[in-house]
Amino acid sequence: MIPNWLLKRAALTPRARALSFEGKTWTYIELKEEAVIRANKLNALGLQRGNRIALLGATSAEMAMLIHGCMLAGVEMVLLNARLTVEEIEYQMKDSQSDLLLFDDAFSEKGRQANFRSVSYTNFLELEPIPMQLESMWEEDRVLTIMYTSGTTGFPKGVRQTAENHTASALSAVLNSGLHEGDAWLHMMPLFHISGFSILARAVLYGTEVRLFEKFDAAVAAQEIVSGNVSGMSVVAVTLERLLTVIENDNLLIHPKFRTMLVGGGPVPVSYLKRAGQCGLPVMQTYGMTETSSQTATLSAEDALRKPGSAGKPLFFTDIRIEGAEEPFDKGEILIKGPHVTKGYIGKHVDKQATENGWLHSGDIGYFDEEGFLFVSDRRSDLIISGGENIYPAEVEAVLVEHPNVLEAGVCAMPSEKWGAVPAAFIVAANTVDLESLDAFCKQQLASYKVPKAFYITDELPRNASNKLMRKTLRECVAEMNVE
Amino acid sequence: MIPNWLLKRAALTPRARALSFEGKTWTYIELKEEAVIRANKLNALGLQRGNRIALLGATSAEMAMLIHGCMLAGVEMVLLNARLTVEEIEYQMKDSQSDLLLFDDAFSEKGRQANFRSVSYTNFLELEPIPMQLESMWEEDRVLTIMYTSGTTGFPKGVRQTAENHTASALSAVLNSGLHEGDAWLHMMPLFHISGFSILARAVLYGTEVRLFEKFDAAVAAQEIVSGNVSGMSVVAVTLERLLTVIENDNLLIHPKFRTMLVGGGPVPVSYLKRAGQCGLPVMQTYGMTETSSQTATLSAEDALRKPGSAGKPLFFTDIRIEGAEEPFDKGEILIKGPHVTKGYIGKHVDKQATENGWLHSGDIGYFDEEGFLFVSDRRSDLIISGGENIYPAEVEAVLVEHPNVLEAGVCAMPSEKWGAVPAAFIVAANTVDLESLDAFCKQQLASYKVPKAFYITDELPRNASNKLMRKTLRECVAEMNVE
Repeated sequence: MIPNWLLKRAALTPRARALSFEGKTWTYIELKEEAVIRANKLNALGLQRGNRIALLGATSAEMAMLIHGCMLAGVEMVLLNARLTVEEIEYQMKDSQSDLLLFDDAFSEKGRQANFRSVSYTNFLELEPIPMQLESMWEEDRVLTIMYTSGTTGFPKGVRQTAENHTASALSAVLNSGLHEGDAWLHMMPLFHISGFSILARAVLYGTEVRLFEKFDAAVAAQEIVSGNVSGMSVVAVTLERLLTVIENDNLLIHPKFRTMLVGGGPVPVSYLKRAGQCGLPVMQTYGMTETSSQTATLSAEDALRKPGSAGKPLFFTDIRIEGAEEPFDKGEILIKGPHVTKGYIGKHVDKQATENGWLHSGDIGYFDEEGFLFVSDRRSDLIISGGENIYPAEVEAVLVEHPNVLEAGVCAMPSEKWGAVPAAFIVAANTVDLESLDAFCKQQLASYKVPKAFYITDELPRNASNKLMRKTLRECVAEMNVE
Repeated sequence: MIPNWLLKRAALTPRARALSFEGKTWTYIELKEEAVIRANKLNALGLQRGNRIALLGATSAEMAMLIHGCMLAGVEMVLLNARLTVEEIEYQMKDSQSDLLLFDDAFSEKGRQANFRSVSYTNFLELEPIPMQLESMWEEDRVLTIMYTSGTTGFPKGVRQTAENHTASALSAVLNSGLHEGDAWLHMMPLFHISGFSILARAVLYGTEVRLFEKFDAAVAAQEIVSGNVSGMSVVAVTLERLLTVIENDNLLIHPKFRTMLVGGGPVPVSYLKRAGQCGLPVMQTYGMTETSSQTATLSAEDALRKPGSAGKPLFFTDIRIEGAEEPFDKGEILIKGPHVTKGYIGKHVDKQATENGWLHSGDIGYFDEEGFLFVSDRRSDLIISGGENIYPAEVEAVLVEHPNVLEAGVCAMPSEKWGAVPAAFIVAANTVDLESLDAFCKQQLASYKVPKAFYITDELPRNASNKLMRKTLRECVAEMNVE
């Protein structure tokens, strides 16, 4: 059994800061009171323990309170990506057999269009609460959250994340990142993603503050970090880059309290790591996914420059192996085991085994070096196979962004009659970039088959809500252009 | 499943400091290597997974390495109190069906006298190791350690402590005490006690250093604390007092790195807390026992003076309730639940349920105040806590009545400035009894701290209507006599 995080935390440190958002602050006892009200309003709507509710909204204090309210009421949450179309919302609600859609008023159009029982935040908050028995202890297998992953092909899969999954993830993380009096986390991620949800989970387990913002803002983030308001923050490579630019331009000094810049959602170019090092920004690269309830391996800041490109070592309660690998540097699919790994899917994919003898097949390709550091070479679905040779887009991108005039790069497969596929590159340029020089730059550092056979200059790269590069979209662009 | 702590830790932070003792220091990879050698030597002795080994020795680096060696080999450890007599050792080895006694050479006399297969450290270390399959993952219920607590019936009970028990205890503790880079714990406790063992367990889970000493030394402890060598230390009331005296006399300044003086093993006089506060020593009082694998409730340093005498709040993964209590301040037996609570006993007491619906009956009386702080008002009815060691009167009485000239015996606590309490005995003699011979008789069969420090000859013992010995009346007699 695992104690309901918020009830236990509010009993332990009621007066500690729990949450701040748009100038307001709540202590743990206040956050609990807000969450209890929402649990009782869910009860008023007739939602029972084991029911499912879908949440649609931007990151906000209200959403954080609703999340805790659901966890008190025993209601499972389906956390909908705020960018979904009405069709996609309907698919996920139907697949998850959700009993209700609770939507942020800003999403009224989508919320009302969806062919389901739905309530806006405003209408929900007007309900008269009906006191209920709160769920003070959880079974290990109690499902707290369901998140859909788009999957490599076909239909999105609803991933079950249990009380044990999230708790184990947070406990592994604390043994890696430490815990200081007064720690606070800067939260500029979507709450509906595992990266954003796990920040909430860790904070309530640790008794620390979440400084919540609706979205990423480089200037505000820099201010928070410089002022000593926060000790940690989660970013992806692209937001890290924007933040670095602000810190560099304004010559800002990192506050000594700040000790963890957690970078996930894909590889981080070495040039960013070097810049972070020069700024005194302690970067911890991490590897994780929805199915592992956030972090599985994390590279410590000390090793950031010694092991550039590595995702670190498997965290304390995590086991990782490379399928088929016999020696260091042997590449293969990354398999993951541990109490943080999902027990499985729901709906359409309910019969699909998430694990094989406890091992989750990540679909990602990677290897361990001789010291046991994990390197994720690429997402399997993005693998470019060219004339029998394997090309990992991340490797090509890492080279491209080293070019002085390249800000961001995305690489994908382009069909080729001769080779089956060849790599193509999308470039966000600093000023102008001379394609011939870029081609020469690549040829200097990459075997010729890995050098992109086409370069496209673009204003921005397609990214999902957590700013992760969507290479599938790049492939679609390439396909369209080649048809024309 | 729980990863073998040391294997995982050595993989994560091989070069971090793990242990220091008498001027030598081992990193985690070095400690692992030492432990592997010992596991392989256990294998050479024919010990298999699931076998039991009894360890007898003082606190030393060798003992720490043996403990980790046993955990690698899958061998369950019976941690013998180093003060036990040969008779007591034989009882515990027989009761636990231990396959081998491994003894520190300084304990050769006891080690060789015991009528069991036994090996000295020196002879053990001369064995040729035979490589074996190390236990890299533990089932939650895997028994790591067995510690005997003397029971109320007179027969000590062997308490099983599992991988989950110890791990949960350490995880609850980290959420309470935090974890900083460079943390180190000053270890001057017996390794065979839960207080001392749990320091080892926490360190390897956290990746921090244990600064190990054979025994408590106030001057050395003060030096460690003042110099910034350590961030925490475990003491009992009597050692806290000696340390305070040194700090006060020498007007020492506590290093800012030092943030946890964990005081357990019984109540702490409020005057000590005040003195600690004046010295700037951050005291955390804790309540725990062998059956709870160390801490169950701990009072934070901030609350030490606000809630003098309290044991704090139940830690994150711990649940405590007061039997029969309906409101704050209602007194009753303290019941404890959680993943840190023993699954049960072995040997003679194997059929005795340790818990009732998951609740451990501590035998201690206590209450919660209006803010949820636990106060332990009376220890296990008659328990004598002497310098952190638990003494059960029944066990001492059982020895006394074996003496040919003793008809009846009653034992109770007698106040002691130095130890908090010591045992006193009331004797109904057959004819005359020579007190010196009685003292010698006890010393033969009881660890010295259990031997009564005063004997009173009386005509009869106070008994209630059902002839049950009323030890409370004995305590009152002792109090009166000491006043006179």
